[in-house]
Amino acid sequence: MKITASLAAAAAACAFAAPASAQFAKPEDAIKYRQSALSVMGQHFGRLGAMASGRAPFDAKAAADNADVLATVSKLPWAGFGPGTDKGRDTRAKPEIWTDQAKFKEAQDRLLAEMPKLIAAAKSGSLDNLKSAFGPASQACKNCHDNFRKE
Amino acid sequence: MKITASLAAAAAACAFAAPASAQFAKPEDAIKYRQSALSVMGQHFGRLGAMASGRAPFDAKAAADNADVLATVSKLPWAGFGPGTDKGRDTRAKPEIWTDQAKFKEAQDRLLAEMPKLIAAAKSGSLDNLKSAFGPASQACKNCHDNFRKE
Repeated sequence: MKITASLAAAAAACAFAAPASAQFAKPEDAIKYRQSALSVMGQHFGRLGAMASGRAPFDAKAAADNADVLATVSKLPWAGFGPGTDKGRDTRAKPEIWTDQAKFKEAQDRLLAEMPKLIAAAKSGSLDNLKSAFGPASQACKNCHDNFRKE
Repeated sequence: MKITASLAAAAAACAFAAPASAQFAKPEDAIKYRQSALSVMGQHFGRLGAMASGRAPFDAKAAADNADVLATVSKLPWAGFGPGTDKGRDTRAKPEIWTDQAKFKEAQDRLLAEMPKLIAAAKSGSLDNLKSAFGPASQACKNCHDNFRKE
């Protein structure tokens, strides 16, 4: 990987407020990374959702643990959507991610604004707090999926 | 998902020292989860390795950021190796994971003992510290792959 490519990737990562420099050797690595990070995120988000909806019993310790994981993992996927990562591996990412970057960034920002509220609620020990915060966070996920993920 | 299945999954999670209750609806979900978590872990581990080996320039901030991600993500995959998750989705996991659980647990423990040392080194701001800690951590990854992952 050339230094210039590395710098470009790092710049792209900064643009998406990634916590670590993006250093993907190939677009397929970035795609696999974002898919993996979103998958882990979805699993832990889903566990909070199961509690919020009553499908699983509320467990304050588990809610707090899931929140801790989400605090880290929710920041990761976005670095994997850098320039040139629209192709290279099977992906449901829509071209609009790269053709309308401002709107995609807005969708990310909406999620990233909801996450601290969800995390705080999930760590509060109150199911009511979790229920209140889960809806808007879930809508932020859905907003991005509706606009930027293929069926 | 039945409550009994949920409790069994939670018990399995505890056995593997998972930070959050394992609540996988299906074995394939657990397999996808562990593969995703290992993939994210490998990416961030690899970034530290690139610095430790000189393939990438040392960047103290990036090293610390990668360490922060690893502190969370390195704890996740193990909950995905619960009972009955040897099949359900393409996997390179060897049957020995389930037939020799003590040895698999030992391999996990070895990695989880190295991770805090690697994380501390990566956050110390010293490339020499990172170099010293990366080797043993990398050997702990390899030990598990050699024994429990198919070619």
